[in-house]
Amino acid sequence: MSGSSLATRITRISGASSHARDDLLAVEEPLEIRIGHESDGERVSSSISVTMRTPGNDEELATGFLFTESIIRSKEDIAFIKPCGSADGDNVIRVELESGVNVDLGLLQRHFYTTSSCGVCGKASLDSLRAAGASAIPPNGVSFSRAMLATLPARLRKAQKTFDETGGLHAAAAFDRDGKLLVLREDIGRHNAVDKVIGALLSEGLLPASEQGLMVSGRASFELMQKALLAGMPLLAAVSAPSSLAVQLAREFNLSLVGFLRGDTFNIYAGEERIA
Amino acid sequence: MSGSSLATRITRISGASSHARDDLLAVEEPLEIRIGHESDGERVSSSISVTMRTPGNDEELATGFLFTESIIRSKEDIAFIKPCGSADGDNVIRVELESGVNVDLGLLQRHFYTTSSCGVCGKASLDSLRAAGASAIPPNGVSFSRAMLATLPARLRKAQKTFDETGGLHAAAAFDRDGKLLVLREDIGRHNAVDKVIGALLSEGLLPASEQGLMVSGRASFELMQKALLAGMPLLAAVSAPSSLAVQLAREFNLSLVGFLRGDTFNIYAGEERIA
Repeated sequence: MSGSSLATRITRISGASSHARDDLLAVEEPLEIRIGHESDGERVSSSISVTMRTPGNDEELATGFLFTESIIRSKEDIAFIKPCGSADGDNVIRVELESGVNVDLGLLQRHFYTTSSCGVCGKASLDSLRAAGASAIPPNGVSFSRAMLATLPARLRKAQKTFDETGGLHAAAAFDRDGKLLVLREDIGRHNAVDKVIGALLSEGLLPASEQGLMVSGRASFELMQKALLAGMPLLAAVSAPSSLAVQLAREFNLSLVGFLRGDTFNIYAGEERIA
Repeated sequence: MSGSSLATRITRISGASSHARDDLLAVEEPLEIRIGHESDGERVSSSISVTMRTPGNDEELATGFLFTESIIRSKEDIAFIKPCGSADGDNVIRVELESGVNVDLGLLQRHFYTTSSCGVCGKASLDSLRAAGASAIPPNGVSFSRAMLATLPARLRKAQKTFDETGGLHAAAAFDRDGKLLVLREDIGRHNAVDKVIGALLSEGLLPASEQGLMVSGRASFELMQKALLAGMPLLAAVSAPSSLAVQLAREFNLSLVGFLRGDTFNIYAGEERIA
């Protein structure tokens, strides 16, 4: 048992038999992210997000969230990060931004999904990503071998400690062309697991991660593709299905997208030239 | 292919072989929910949510969302629902509330997770549910047999048309004590699938659904348990793992919670007396 799992007593049913036993649950607790920033020449504090997450690596989660929501552009935008007072337990984290960092809180509320030209639609979601500064992944960069990709699910699974205990966590990992997992994080929310990975990469000065792929334990949604794109990662590989808008994003922004990656069988939805 | 799936061309890799083929993707598109309501004696329109969803049953989705966020309390609170103008495609829906319905938009922003007494924590999340009017499920109501529960995963799977095509959708269903699926909905977001089910029940005058259970194709989170509770459903059954806070909510509000439901093996986390 760790901070990310919690022991409890359950009843296990198997056919006609029934017995009480101890079990471990994946921990889910709210985290509030606050930022300290300038507004009209004064320092203010704004609460920008409350997310249900698995405790652990909260600084990375906050950093990755701010980066993938385009609130910060580099680690130099952060002066320091600290948990808030004990009255709030460990469930409030405050990111103090450097003076001069221009914060557009409206960006968060608009959620990137609308533009004035065509209202609310998938295309507008892609257009507004572009408007927020996202650009396509350059061609002729790193490539990944089929043989390496086939090894990823087993590597991810082996490294997922809390999943083994609870069966209840998503995982995300950054990997290189040799299949080495550089950063792996688990969370009850798959977007949080990805934010933790990207937050860790940003903190270590490794963004844009133009030589690395992102592996996720579940499905590939628009939101996860958007995070990979903003981190400059040329490939996203998912154990399960991608959505229509994830595929559209990958094709428009020149990312490679692999789905249903299960051993040596998988589907390539976009960016096949990067897969050798 | 339907409105919830989209055809595309992919490359299928299997060991050393590789071939192009047609495939179907689960559709993901943004939906903006707006409400028309009174504010200081005037009719105004407020945008309250943009969610990525699979098109279809959008009126139910909006209705269920408003109900489970405690913006409306009954179907009588809704005057009418209509899609917005064509400039927005089919991705904006407007729910016109009856005059006299008191809307607290702050509720949405607070997300139920904080109280003044103890800040941000799991306990506060439960307390604020109570403060918003949620009460425990009464004892001595309906019970569900083990044998019936064992049949649910196969019934759900059989009814999931778009999942069969795409592998990319979550499902949720309301079922009765005989295991009959009364309402089943699919969506790329599991919270959306549940909102659609609850919106359908509300529209048909079937809430509180005190004789029905809720089945979900994935994990059981705090958010999904909260929705079941507000709909008055005494049991939630999930194919995968529950979170710590889902179990805590179930125990405090007297819901039954079944997880890892796979044929005739499953775990009971709470409310065992309701399972015969």
